[in-house]
Amino acid sequence: MLALGSRRYGLAAVVLILAGACTHASPGPETPRWVDLTHPFDETTIYWPTSKPFALSTVHKGPAGGGYWYEANNFEAAEHGGTHIDAPVHFAKDRWAVDAIPLDRLIAPGIRVDVSGRVQDNADYLISRADFIEWEARHGRIEAGSIVLVRTGWEARWPDKKRYLGTDTTGDTANLHFPGFHEDAARFLTQERNVAAVGLDTASLDFGQSTEFKAHRVFGAANVPGFENLTQLGTLPVRGFRVIALPMKIGGGSGAPLRIIAEIP
Amino acid sequence: MLALGSRRYGLAAVVLILAGACTHASPGPETPRWVDLTHPFDETTIYWPTSKPFALSTVHKGPAGGGYWYEANNFEAAEHGGTHIDAPVHFAKDRWAVDAIPLDRLIAPGIRVDVSGRVQDNADYLISRADFIEWEARHGRIEAGSIVLVRTGWEARWPDKKRYLGTDTTGDTANLHFPGFHEDAARFLTQERNVAAVGLDTASLDFGQSTEFKAHRVFGAANVPGFENLTQLGTLPVRGFRVIALPMKIGGGSGAPLRIIAEIP
Ligand SMILES: [Zn+2]
Ligand SMILES: [Zn+2]
Repeated sequence: MLALGSRRYGLAAVVLILAGACTHASPGPETPRWVDLTHPFDETTIYWPTSKPFALSTVHKGPAGGGYWYEANNFEAAEHGGTHIDAPVHFAKDRWAVDAIPLDRLIAPGIRVDVSGRVQDNADYLISRADFIEWEARHGRIEAGSIVLVRTGWEARWPDKKRYLGTDTTGDTANLHFPGFHEDAARFLTQERNVAAVGLDTASLDFGQSTEFKAHRVFGAANVPGFENLTQLGTLPVRGFRVIALPMKIGGGSGAPLRIIAEIP
Repeated sequence: MLALGSRRYGLAAVVLILAGACTHASPGPETPRWVDLTHPFDETTIYWPTSKPFALSTVHKGPAGGGYWYEANNFEAAEHGGTHIDAPVHFAKDRWAVDAIPLDRLIAPGIRVDVSGRVQDNADYLISRADFIEWEARHGRIEAGSIVLVRTGWEARWPDKKRYLGTDTTGDTANLHFPGFHEDAARFLTQERNVAAVGLDTASLDFGQSTEFKAHRVFGAANVPGFENLTQLGTLPVRGFRVIALPMKIGGGSGAPLRIIAEIP
């Protein structure tokens, strides 16, 4: 197949070029670019006003008896806080818990929809079906199995709890203000586009003033996981990247800390 | 080759077939095969005899006031238990904490070395430099930047604490028996092969009877993360796969729960 001076040689060159583009198949210097869409877990990490926040406690940090350095900690938190996954079972009976979600719902081609321009003067903005229809008119159809990431711009307010949630008072859910998905948008993405998963850069799939959590319920019923409190969405292209979203594998979990990255070939 | 009488058509077919193989670049039906190398976190998850085990506590599970289903939990654990990462700082001062580890140390071509045949009659087996030299003689050199996964066969003993650790008594570290890396093997992999990370299917990089944790110290000093308590290593090929290891992003963590998969193109 490496015949010289023939059309075969041209074919071999094409084969080699294409093989080189498959960076996950061939170890080599051409690694893809990764963007970490994850906030760290520390004392600034934002949780729901009624939830147990993240806490790290030192077990040891310093020289150990044996003459070597040693660090170890314990940690505790609610499942739903910081950059995390909502398993479908969070708001829908008998749907997938965290450890039951198939990997093809967590690793899939991504698209990024930016609504930050519409959100500026409206902290209660509902991401609409029209936002996705308009995106499709410009960038093409949202393919089945895609992971849809919506940038509201809220990521820039992190970790200022008052600006990010609308309130920094423990227990205060009355004054939550941030954008989320309209239930019609959730229906469109699940029933008409069969997306694998959705995510955004706010604290919840539903907007802050929601009391019925209809987006959560629609996504959950359709077994579509949600990724909340994402960051760095502003650095992503509109399509042409892959999302890799790997949650802590909590058995029977309704949610879990999520490490999520975008891989740009 | 699908040719309808013209060489050009044949070339186009090759291009399409190869493009289809690049699943991370082009969404399509041909997804790679994934193997989840992660144990779930639940009440059976094995922790070090002196460590705080994983505990999940229910916040709510059932119909909520608003007429919808609702589940949520809190959880707590030591960083080092179940399938988890050892950040280099765990045993080496000023090396990377969990959130500082670059993604190219966590996502890289993998190789699998199987020593299970040598371990059967020796629970205190030390994975040796010779094990890797022999592997290289058969399968080729371990390339710089590889993630080296060693299968001892201990994964089959999970979640039987007594058989997996050698003891099921809280606080008993005297009777720990399981294989781990010899310090010479750690030096070979870090200094002579420049690997990105290492992992195995036992509770620790060092063997159960270790009191000086020399493998941990060598890997840590070289800023090489370790993946512990892996599973499903028996299903992997010897090479030709990619490891994707994404830990919970604990700020300043010495370790963290790890979701780790192999991607086989
Ligand atoms: Zn949530
Ligand atoms: Zn560890």
